This record gives sequence, C-alpha cells and structure tokens, in this order.
Amino acid sequence: MGFHLTDAEINSEQVNKIEHLGVAVKNLGTSNLLFEKLLGVAHYKVEEVASEGVRTSFFMSGPNKIELLEATSVDSPIAKFIAKKGEGVHHVAFAVDDIIAEMERLKKEGFTLLNEVPKKGADNKLVAFVHPKSANGILIELCQEIAEE
Amino acid sequence: MGFHLTDAEINSEQVNKIEHLGVAVKNLGTSNLLFEKLLGVAHYKVEEVASEGVRTSFFMSGPNKIELLEATSVDSPIAKFIAKKGEGVHHVAFAVDDIIAEMERLKKEGFTLLNEVPKKGADNKLVAFVHPKSANGILIELCQEIAEE
Repeated sequence: MGFHLTDAEINSEQVNKIEHLGVAVKNLGTSNLLFEKLLGVAHYKVEEVASEGVRTSFFMSGPNKIELLEATSVDSPIAKFIAKKGEGVHHVAFAVDDIIAEMERLKKEGFTLLNEVPKKGADNKLVAFVHPKSANGILIELCQEIAEE
Repeated sequence: MGFHLTDAEINSEQVNKIEHLGVAVKNLGTSNLLFEKLLGVAHYKVEEVASEGVRTSFFMSGPNKIELLEATSVDSPIAKFIAKKGEGVHHVAFAVDDIIAEMERLKKEGFTLLNEVPKKGADNKLVAFVHPKSANGILIELCQEIAEE
C-alpha cells in the first residue's frame, strides 16, 4: 500500500483497533436473536451496568465485538438516544493501551472529552468518551482493558 | 470466556470482522485532518466511486479501517444521509469470504438485501448491502476482497 507507520505512530499512546461497536436497541432479547442471525454466532455474555442504566450483550466478530445496549430506565442515555434517533449505532469504541495518555493527547488535539477521568465500563474496561460534536457526529469511546490482579 | 465456536460457526460463510466503518462527512479535507488526529495515523488513500457519487478516504486502525465518504453530487446517497441525519456513521461493513453464499444465508434468515447481486465497491471489494430496517437501524455492508488475477 506504500503506507508505513512512523515511530511516533507506533508508540503505545494511539488507538489500536475498533474494540467494539455499541448499538442501541429497544429489546435485548429480540436484538440478540437478530444479531445472532446476522453474525452467525451467539452472544457470549450479558452484563448490566447499573451506573449507566443499561443492560448489554456482547458478540465476537473476529478481533472486534458488537455490544448491544438496552435501557433499564426511562432516563438512561440509551432510552434518550432511541427516542431521538431510533435504534442504531450509538458509539464506536477504540482500544487503547494507556487511556490517560490518550485522553491527554486528544485534549491537546482539540477534542472535547466527556469525562475528566476514566470510569469503569462494561466488559472489564476503563472507558472515556469524546463528544460527538468534536468527532464528526460520532460518540467515540476509548477503552483500556483492566489488568488482572 | 467459556465461549466456543461450533463447526457451523467456523465455516467460511460467516462474517469475519468489522472490515470498515463508513462515516458520512461534509468535507473530506476537514475530516481527514480530524481523523488523523483522532486515530494518530494519516489516511493512506483517496478513491472516488463515481457510480455511488462519493469520494472516499481510508484510515487503518489495526485490523479495521475507517472509510470517510464525501458526496460528489447533490443526489449522492451521502448528501441525502447528511441532509437527514447529519455527519456520522453511515454504514458498518463486515468482511466475508464468500459474498454470494453469505447473501443467500442472510436472505434465508429473513434479512432484506438492497442488491440482488454483489457490485464493485471502493477498495477493491465486491459489496452488497442489508437494509437498515431489517438490521436494527444499521446499514450493513458485506464485502469480499476481489482476488488478484
């Protein structure tokens, strides 16, 4: 492709891949069946994140995941999203090795972060969000795997 | 994870990974700079797909790509998408090994396909689309790399 990474680009303070795609759904049961047919695999776990007002399920697709998100209360961000935009892609999560460094880097680049510090998300991750207004309309999540003790 | 693929799940007629995320943008130059900052890498190519009325650029993110799409005419699907929904995720593309077989499988599973046969897309791919109404509001693209002669 004639495309080579520079030293600066292969350091650890960059995004590594699409870790997962977050999809807002009205009904987790219905959408679990739909995505099972679409992807050809069953979801491998269901997890509730009470602090976010969501119940989630996860599918593997090679190196990537699909996270379905169902609201567990009327004031959940997912309920508001669906009321405004309907079901669909809610956020795009990129895997990073050092979320603090990456948040610093993006702030310096002019992105608006929605958290000052990382918070505990689903799937054993530290997460932080970039405001969609500073990222072409896309809610971007940075996520770093929490190391096992 | 306690999650194992069955024989049926590891055959070649399944989706392999998120090949790319298609993002509708108003101005390719502006968004190329934005995504360069976000992902920490420059785009590696620009390609016009005249039949679709789009100019595209591509970024690598590990095993995945981000495809930015700018309309080249007012009746381009991308112009219509932005007029209706604003900039943001336009489609999610999954890599498949056998696009014909995968289209057949999805049709049998009840999904509505937007093409009867695959067509030539950007980035040396055969592509076909699944209607967002049958896929939780997401425009799904299937894409198969065209083998080199």
